Amino acid sequence: MRNIYLDTQELEKALKIFQENILKFFYKLESETISSKDAFGRVSRNAIYAKYSSPAYHSSAMDGVMVKSEMTKYARENKPLFLKNEDFIFCNTGSALVKGYDAVIMIEDVKIEKDGITIMKAVNPWENIRIQGEDVVEKDLLFTSFHKFSSVDLSVLIASGITEVEVLKKVKLAIIPSGNEIIGEEDELKIGKIIESNSAMLISMARENGIDTLLYPIVKDNKDDIKTVLEKALNECDFITLIAGTSAGSKDYAREVLEEMGEVYAHGLSIKPGKPAILGKIGETPFVGLPGYPVSAHIIFDKIVISTILKKMRVNIEDKLILKAKLTRPIISSLKNREYIRIKIGIVDGKLIATPLDRKAGSLYSLSESDGYVIIDRNIEGYNRGDVVNVSLHRPIPKNVLENRIVSIGSHDIVLDVINDLLAIENKNTRLSSSHVGSLSGFKALSEGDSLIAPSHLLDKNGTYNNDAIKLFFKNEKVGKINVVGRRQGIYVEKGNPLGIKTIEDLLDKTMINRQRGAGTRLLFDYLLDKKNIDKYKIKGYDNEVTTHLSAALAVKNRDCDFSIGVESAAIKMDIDFIYLKDEEYQFIVKEKNLKLNSIKDIIEILKSKKFKDTMEKLGGYNTDKSGSIII
Amino acid sequence: MRNIYLDTQELEKALKIFQENILKFFYKLESETISSKDAFGRVSRNAIYAKYSSPAYHSSAMDGVMVKSEMTKYARENKPLFLKNEDFIFCNTGSALVKGYDAVIMIEDVKIEKDGITIMKAVNPWENIRIQGEDVVEKDLLFTSFHKFSSVDLSVLIASGITEVEVLKKVKLAIIPSGNEIIGEEDELKIGKIIESNSAMLISMARENGIDTLLYPIVKDNKDDIKTVLEKALNECDFITLIAGTSAGSKDYAREVLEEMGEVYAHGLSIKPGKPAILGKIGETPFVGLPGYPVSAHIIFDKIVISTILKKMRVNIEDKLILKAKLTRPIISSLKNREYIRIKIGIVDGKLIATPLDRKAGSLYSLSESDGYVIIDRNIEGYNRGDVVNVSLHRPIPKNVLENRIVSIGSHDIVLDVINDLLAIENKNTRLSSSHVGSLSGFKALSEGDSLIAPSHLLDKNGTYNNDAIKLFFKNEKVGKINVVGRRQGIYVEKGNPLGIKTIEDLLDKTMINRQRGAGTRLLFDYLLDKKNIDKYKIKGYDNEVTTHLSAALAVKNRDCDFSIGVESAAIKMDIDFIYLKDEEYQFIVKEKNLKLNSIKDIIEILKSKKFKDTMEKLGGYNTDKSGSIII
Repeated sequence: MRNIYLDTQELEKALKIFQENILKFFYKLESETISSKDAFGRVSRNAIYAKYSSPAYHSSAMDGVMVKSEMTKYARENKPLFLKNEDFIFCNTGSALVKGYDAVIMIEDVKIEKDGITIMKAVNPWENIRIQGEDVVEKDLLFTSFHKFSSVDLSVLIASGITEVEVLKKVKLAIIPSGNEIIGEEDELKIGKIIESNSAMLISMARENGIDTLLYPIVKDNKDDIKTVLEKALNECDFITLIAGTSAGSKDYAREVLEEMGEVYAHGLSIKPGKPAILGKIGETPFVGLPGYPVSAHIIFDKIVISTILKKMRVNIEDKLILKAKLTRPIISSLKNREYIRIKIGIVDGKLIATPLDRKAGSLYSLSESDGYVIIDRNIEGYNRGDVVNVSLHRPIPKNVLENRIVSIGSHDIVLDVINDLLAIENKNTRLSSSHVGSLSGFKALSEGDSLIAPSHLLDKNGTYNNDAIKLFFKNEKVGKINVVGRRQGIYVEKGNPLGIKTIEDLLDKTMINRQRGAGTRLLFDYLLDKKNIDKYKIKGYDNEVTTHLSAALAVKNRDCDFSIGVESAAIKMDIDFIYLKDEEYQFIVKEKNLKLNSIKDIIEILKSKKFKDTMEKLGGYNTDKSGSIII
Repeated sequence: MRNIYLDTQELEKALKIFQENILKFFYKLESETISSKDAFGRVSRNAIYAKYSSPAYHSSAMDGVMVKSEMTKYARENKPLFLKNEDFIFCNTGSALVKGYDAVIMIEDVKIEKDGITIMKAVNPWENIRIQGEDVVEKDLLFTSFHKFSSVDLSVLIASGITEVEVLKKVKLAIIPSGNEIIGEEDELKIGKIIESNSAMLISMARENGIDTLLYPIVKDNKDDIKTVLEKALNECDFITLIAGTSAGSKDYAREVLEEMGEVYAHGLSIKPGKPAILGKIGETPFVGLPGYPVSAHIIFDKIVISTILKKMRVNIEDKLILKAKLTRPIISSLKNREYIRIKIGIVDGKLIATPLDRKAGSLYSLSESDGYVIIDRNIEGYNRGDVVNVSLHRPIPKNVLENRIVSIGSHDIVLDVINDLLAIENKNTRLSSSHVGSLSGFKALSEGDSLIAPSHLLDKNGTYNNDAIKLFFKNEKVGKINVVGRRQGIYVEKGNPLGIKTIEDLLDKTMINRQRGAGTRLLFDYLLDKKNIDKYKIKGYDNEVTTHLSAALAVKNRDCDFSIGVESAAIKMDIDFIYLKDEEYQFIVKEKNLKLNSIKDIIEILKSKKFKDTMEKLGGYNTDKSGSIII
């Protein structure tokens, strides 16, 4: 049987109904007593009052001598006063005040003589004394009920004599992965199988928020099995989440099971990613069905599961920081859903820019890479390139990270990864933040102020590289080129070259996967076809595109096509055959005024280093003779 | 022997010399291999490349039917197309693409018939297919060396087939408390002893930053003992901290020992709190002597120990958030030191205000209470009341916490704690943030826009409360009063009243501790003395001040004086005797326009609740008949 979604609901409305039905009933704010030393991040159950004052008695606030202030009152700079040994007591910071004494003179203000001391100024009663209870008075309220303890709070507790505290027990959350196609990380990955990877992320998110988890074995798409594990989880946990099986597919049983065992409050939310979520309860236990796509699971887990548990524990959730940044690409969104667009932030020419990343719910890596979300509400069609948008950050970005991030938009090469890793190894803060759109689009982005560098390898009419494009895109601004690597372009074919491809002419009756429009590799291929008067549209699959050399090589390795095109290093990495076509220069295009930036200097330093040359040599297919030299 | 400080140094300079001498040598970036599931917050040792692509094969991106796109090309809304059962395959999200098929049609766009399906539109090749490697291509660089893993990263690792990662070992940090007067929390607290409470805070701070600690037993102020424990720590840890013994007192051996065993780079820093710090090394192991005062220890541990270790591990430290806020009190600072002033933030009439807290290095509670620091650099004398200052937040404050914080400046009563605890128990976000300056200063603060409410109990000439002050301070603005409690004022005397005090006249030859200038309790006492024509300055100790009822009661309990004055509840709490003088009204003064704020409504709700009345009755000395009623 196939489900259809109940009416999709707005997140806030669904969450409200859900919480109204479950907040009162689950997890009864039970408590446990723990050592105050272990109370960091835990939440007090009751008000906590000081057992001792702090300080616990009057004491000296500094190293010096204890005196009776009355005796010092005529001491002056120009009229020093001598005190006999029986009239004062040497003391250290923290020494208890001796009965009869009422002030302390700093050791720096005391001249030590044979039978006593000379002082140069008077002290007032209680001067330099820490009064008992100055910080905390015994029986003072230290912390109210439901207070979340910081590191400093632990010392406050202990200094006030509170060695144990009653805190809320941690909520126990069941995480149940499901799906016939899902396997454990220890199992062999075969076609049709997917490694269960969501739970690691969810457990870690829960732990960060002080929530305990219990991970159940992967359950099959089968009503009885699901029911059995739910029964078990009901006995063992305060809150249940089931991963996948929440959509409207023929094997999605979550809703059906939930309807039989408990109540459904929402099925389908009008957010993207995150739509196929289910909210309900079984008995008094809240149930949330999480979508199987990792980005969707992340959003639903964060916005519904964690926020509900923290609300019950009365823990305030920190606001997300908002940055305003300029969009480098338009975003179009459907009016039906609120959409969360992953964003990478950068600084170009002193301005914050926001680059939208992959929007697919399955693209976990783009979530890992992203700094935050732009949220496009329902009934809003999207934003234009150049619009200033609010980016809601996942977590604060340290300023020096942002300032040392080089926004790179243009052609792709594995060398970008090598540079980044060497920067990290050499303990530089500089990092490349790369988008792979091809050389031509990279030039456009650079000229429009969306990037700091454009990696490019566009062949000029006269055989040099990138000069024609510079003339075209930069009429009024000086631009420099940094030589990165020389590399070998060619044709990717299956290992052993079973089709016997030797020259470009052999490609006519073969199927290809191409690089995206504007990619230097594609333009080079077009140029070579042109020279031989071959009609490129006669090549099957000419319009099928991928955006990196590795993806192109993978397509050949997996026989999705007969051949593809790209640089030699990717062929070596993928262990396929490579038919050489042409040498070329891969360069970073940079506005001349930016060549003096420290981050750019770091890049040049890396390119010139022996480690870089050694690494590239090991990869194969690269020439590093000119790496790091600048052409203006 | 007494030390004197080496020349005090600026923090940055001292830190630079310290790091130049130790960064290369300690903790050799050793690594260990752990399960990817446990990698949250850990730092990669090497670059990590994907083992599998993700998705690992072409698969359906949705629930629907797999088709050959070619066959669908004539399907239109007004020209539906029928596909026979052998021409399509039902599939779920994630199903592997079957060889020969190249697109998927959403289930919602399919009409299921008896022997096949009807479709209403064409699909393009690869439509609704997740291409193999769409998220990650095998051999892609996933993370560079020295990458700190987030929760999402764990799933990226596992989805790409990386079940184990090589990460940096945690730095092991020795924490050695010292001091003859220091005792463990399990020991009995006697006069002259101090509970060791710093280590709990420091261990928790270290743990938060991914640093392992080893806590040593408390060592005596004795060179040999200190040397012995340092030798032990050198063998067991990567970095050593010694708490206390770092100042210039006669029992401060840290510098001497360090000079004998290793090298001293700085002794004495020009910051406050934090001055008595020592930076050095023993062999290749960094050594930091932390001041014994908790706030000083906190600052030095944060700014020197943690920042140095994270720098070595190449972990970026998040910037502190800065809020701009208006100072409610002037701050004067010495030109010699950079000073860190603890600040509590609030919102009054829509403006952010910054209230300076206790500045003493021993006042840990004020650090726990504070939201951040105002930093006053050397050579700056301080700031005036009303200046807008930068407050560097310890951690972000959620907006709803700030908005629901009622800034209360004025008279002190235990009822303020009771209200706060009941607000927490009743799950309200509203909290009182109180400064205790006395009724009169409270009126001043309210009239100048520094607070939202002023707790006050000023007796009017005609026997009512607070009306005279309202007339005086608020000529043009309407102000309301909220009745909080009626309470009994009187004289605090030792349990059993050994001096036989019965009336005010009996106080003339006794010693007192008074409340601060402007406190309603003090004004009431003055008024009563006046009525009896007693010269207040004849009472010994009239000028000795404390700021809360509990402090006043404590002073009597500990026989620091013969009597004090205050409300009955504090006497009951401290278990001393109380001689009744007068009933009075304790009220919250609020600008009329603010009475409608939700936070104020929450307070009134609490004041009217049975729980409140019950709690106050239990405390004793209070009358709650009028609690929560408003007088305008």
